[in-house]
Amino acid sequence: MKQSLGTKTLLYPTPVLVVGSYDADGRPNVMTAAWGGIACSKPPCVSISLRAATASHSNIVARKAFTISLPSREQAAQADYFGLVSGRDADKFAVSGLTPLAAEFVDAPFVAEFPLVVECQVLQIHELGLHTQFVGEIKDVKIDTQCLDSEGHIDVSKLDPVAFVPEASAYFALGELIGPAHSIGKVFTAKPDS
Amino acid sequence: MKQSLGTKTLLYPTPVLVVGSYDADGRPNVMTAAWGGIACSKPPCVSISLRAATASHSNIVARKAFTISLPSREQAAQADYFGLVSGRDADKFAVSGLTPLAAEFVDAPFVAEFPLVVECQVLQIHELGLHTQFVGEIKDVKIDTQCLDSEGHIDVSKLDPVAFVPEASAYFALGELIGPAHSIGKVFTAKPDS
Repeated sequence: MKQSLGTKTLLYPTPVLVVGSYDADGRPNVMTAAWGGIACSKPPCVSISLRAATASHSNIVARKAFTISLPSREQAAQADYFGLVSGRDADKFAVSGLTPLAAEFVDAPFVAEFPLVVECQVLQIHELGLHTQFVGEIKDVKIDTQCLDSEGHIDVSKLDPVAFVPEASAYFALGELIGPAHSIGKVFTAKPDS
Repeated sequence: MKQSLGTKTLLYPTPVLVVGSYDADGRPNVMTAAWGGIACSKPPCVSISLRAATASHSNIVARKAFTISLPSREQAAQADYFGLVSGRDADKFAVSGLTPLAAEFVDAPFVAEFPLVVECQVLQIHELGLHTQFVGEIKDVKIDTQCLDSEGHIDVSKLDPVAFVPEASAYFALGELIGPAHSIGKVFTAKPDS
């Protein structure tokens, strides 16, 4: 039996998106957002939603660029901290002991220690309400080589990603492999029509 | 050391969004999408990105409504199947043995057996390229009562969510709790400025 929870922002798992940007003086900032995801395959795009009140919002409007750095499990506390304070009040890189590096293809910094980085150029901006949605075209993806297997494929266990579940308001590690996509559903296509 | 992977659509974890819609004749359809997420807190919105070639795209343009049903681990194969074939070629509910139910607040069906359902009214439509992004205002969220604990809070272990990792192209269960959000990062706010 289902029960209504009302009009909540509940969808899971959400990613933990550490958004990197430069301010007007070129100082690197990061904030953490869970509202976003891949938005298009061609051109490859991600969307992130930020409140207009954030320093990152102003930065991205001005520079038309941002990065997304994805933490591993052992960096979850740093990622959580990036969402707790404003870049106007603290140098979040210095406080957390992490290192800003300039992206290669866009005008924004990323977190050197995080295992995966997506470099994005702003393509569209949509005012939705409390949040502004920035659609960024992916200009490059960078991964720590130690998260690749011997054949150059991604080893998810080495990435050790962090997932966020709204309402539960908690971070989780990824667990067991359930199965390959575009594959485990074929059990139904093999069925005769009934 | 980081290595460039080029311009891939790689961000993780992504949700497994089973999108429900009615066609022109009122037949329920479902398809699975991983491109999407929460887009705004007020009004509460989700965004999903679909290719124009899909039956669901036509349905949602016409009816301005969709649902998102989220599978549990034991329903991952059905969710995968929903992404393998077109609703123009198969009655995916009949083949998978799942039940379409009419949403309460929007003109779209959901999957009765899946533990969480989000009912959405289309608010904005953005053409991004291969994919069209539909921003839907959340009109209701429904959850199976058996996924709530005795105090009415969400029990993530009972939801047993499915996550998708692009590039690895695989479904994963959620694993261990890392910690509470807006909390584990406070270890850095407590630090004296250095």
